Amino acid sequence: MSEIKTIIVNRSAYADNDLEANALRAYLKEKGTFVVNLMSSPGAGKTTTLTKLINALKNEYRIGVMEADIDSDVDAISIAKNTGVKSIQLHTSGMCHLDAGMTKSGLDSIDINDLDLVFLENVGNLVCPAEFDTGASLDIMILSVPEGDDKPLKYPLVFEKCDLVIINKIDTLEYFDFNLEKCTEWIKRRNKNATIIPISAKTGQGIELVAKYFKEKIRNWKEN
Amino acid sequence: MSEIKTIIVNRSAYADNDLEANALRAYLKEKGTFVVNLMSSPGAGKTTTLTKLINALKNEYRIGVMEADIDSDVDAISIAKNTGVKSIQLHTSGMCHLDAGMTKSGLDSIDINDLDLVFLENVGNLVCPAEFDTGASLDIMILSVPEGDDKPLKYPLVFEKCDLVIINKIDTLEYFDFNLEKCTEWIKRRNKNATIIPISAKTGQGIELVAKYFKEKIRNWKEN
Repeated sequence: MSEIKTIIVNRSAYADNDLEANALRAYLKEKGTFVVNLMSSPGAGKTTTLTKLINALKNEYRIGVMEADIDSDVDAISIAKNTGVKSIQLHTSGMCHLDAGMTKSGLDSIDINDLDLVFLENVGNLVCPAEFDTGASLDIMILSVPEGDDKPLKYPLVFEKCDLVIINKIDTLEYFDFNLEKCTEWIKRRNKNATIIPISAKTGQGIELVAKYFKEKIRNWKEN
Repeated sequence: MSEIKTIIVNRSAYADNDLEANALRAYLKEKGTFVVNLMSSPGAGKTTTLTKLINALKNEYRIGVMEADIDSDVDAISIAKNTGVKSIQLHTSGMCHLDAGMTKSGLDSIDINDLDLVFLENVGNLVCPAEFDTGASLDIMILSVPEGDDKPLKYPLVFEKCDLVIINKIDTLEYFDFNLEKCTEWIKRRNKNATIIPISAKTGQGIELVAKYFKEKIRNWKEN
């Protein structure tokens, strides 16, 4: 799988990231490409979830994946191998997040002309990615059971920014002290409009619900 | 436990963090206070590990804890309640890491005159904290089994910077696809001098080994 394309993305030259993000969103609307920004802690299961989700969606949409990482291209290789979709690696040059300019560079490089849906796997980090609008059409995050149910209290911004919170690794609920009800309440306190879907990317439980959520979001986005 | 002291720490005014970190290290040596900077992803078990470790060390040392967080004081409250040692909360004003100036503010606030050992729990983040020397006498990190064995490939800097890597939640090894041998090899590739200790903070397994490691480090530090 050495044919994975890797590009280096650098901090945007634009002073106003929000302006640039809005411009990118308008451009994507015009092109008809729906971009999903996926955030989580390291090891919450972004790549495994994406793999299962893409396999549930790839008959309906032409999908691309951009895997952001500080170093390494293990995720892009894994996605390409396990889904067959177009996948590139973005190296952030040590940066802890992606901004709209970096996202635009990645999209130019993957070439969105033949893509309906692009997943952007952000750097594994609950802090900085939440502070920078990437210009994506939708922001989602994964919280995994082993991380603990108190994360909405400790990393409020990322929960406030997300349209969808996926709670992953629910197959391990019995091994960890994680209260799903309490966690839901804490997420809702930060963001009453957030959709919350518990899944196990490992067993596949809940993946169909997430796929259904995306289909609805993309349909609404196209119609509006 | 409403008596937890919370202070706001802001980005240092000093241009050169490394200079300031070295000055802080020299000052701490003079005061005889050993400061440990503890880094990890969100939810890797920093607070639980610290609680067990402090209970194993508190008869021998006068210990203080500084809990850095973007928001909330759940960790400082938990440490105070479960160990009885002096504990303060540092709020980073949204910042994703601590630098030497912020650490110094925290140390001034906790008052190190009657402390031999201070644990600084950094913001849960594998990226940014590794880029800023806090001035601590020792840097350690916790990687937890559910995060996956590939983290040394994806977040190289934090593994390079640490004297000790604690691998936590080994009681869950059978539920996750985590190869301890491979992980050790990848850590050693980044940092051949790193000490690696597998533990379960939950069951207490390995805590005595970590306590022994600290006693030795503190003894050497005092003698040199």
